[in-house]
Amino acid sequence: MSQPLSDSALDQLFREARTYNGYLDKPVSDEQLHAIWDLMKMGPTSANMLPARLVWCTTDEAKQKLAALCLPANAEKVLKAPVSVIVAMDIDYHEQLPWLFPHADAKAWFDGNEPLREISAIRNSSLQGGYFILAARALGLDTGPISGFNNAAVDAAFFADTPQVRSNFISTLGYGDPATIFGRSPRPDFDTFNRIA
Amino acid sequence: MSQPLSDSALDQLFREARTYNGYLDKPVSDEQLHAIWDLMKMGPTSANMLPARLVWCTTDEAKQKLAALCLPANAEKVLKAPVSVIVAMDIDYHEQLPWLFPHADAKAWFDGNEPLREISAIRNSSLQGGYFILAARALGLDTGPISGFNNAAVDAAFFADTPQVRSNFISTLGYGDPATIFGRSPRPDFDTFNRIA
Repeated sequence: MSQPLSDSALDQLFREARTYNGYLDKPVSDEQLHAIWDLMKMGPTSANMLPARLVWCTTDEAKQKLAALCLPANAEKVLKAPVSVIVAMDIDYHEQLPWLFPHADAKAWFDGNEPLREISAIRNSSLQGGYFILAARALGLDTGPISGFNNAAVDAAFFADTPQVRSNFISTLGYGDPATIFGRSPRPDFDTFNRIA
Repeated sequence: MSQPLSDSALDQLFREARTYNGYLDKPVSDEQLHAIWDLMKMGPTSANMLPARLVWCTTDEAKQKLAALCLPANAEKVLKAPVSVIVAMDIDYHEQLPWLFPHADAKAWFDGNEPLREISAIRNSSLQGGYFILAARALGLDTGPISGFNNAAVDAAFFADTPQVRSNFISTLGYGDPATIFGRSPRPDFDTFNRIA
């Protein structure tokens, strides 16, 4: 049975962590990207479907290609960040289930039912997006998730060869520059959006 | 600038955490539910929309009502867990944006566009689902997320008075019983589902 993490860990993960609009001039290594994946992949998804497919844009060329498809305010963030990540999802994730979920014929639950695969892919790749954000923070990094971009254009630019893969959201990644954040938006008390039954 | 969390914290959050099928006979207090919310609400959502609406079923009556609408294998988990949570989403979250995102007229971005609100609500309430799972683990608790249930029936049973609120997924919550888990399903290497561009 586990104990609560320390206050400083809870601060780093949740209470003092922020969404950054810009980053310090400090690189993020490929090894760090692997380390984020090796944490985030451990988080649960339905039938271990792991539908997220990630493209980590680290070169100027890739960041420019992505930035051109974002709203102007987001384009600059994508361009200037050390890394800008596309969190996409494979609608045909069920093809992988024979090895990802070997103890049942989970592929059969999804065969021929694209609406079910779509809702499962968006739900579970978004869960994985939450794991990505918290894994990055757990490793001392910061993120800036963005949904203001042209999904269809990003899909055409990055996933033309795999049309079953579609963008969900994108995020910048790096060591956040405190000068680029604003005051925190309000967070509601428990009773506003919760009830105990 | 933050440092990586300790190995034991990373184990508790990701590497050794598991989805539990059953729990120890140890209660979870209402104060702990508030503590989970107070962490998970700090995680980022698009325009601070916070679309998740949570119903924490702690009474036998509420758990029985929910269990009756689950697949049989999940019904017993829901009944026996100290707490079973419905993670729902408010499709009309934009009505709250004037106070949740006070520095811009974000409500106007979503007025009259229900398809945009639906995809945003599922994406962002699922992100919040990821924060919920990791907040629970950070506080020493364990979860068992479940999507095998009748969403429409749960909506009718729990959200009849608020038809704009729809269930996303549910989760059990408690102190996990190690006797109730199986071997971990495979987790892919970085190169399987990631690329660096």
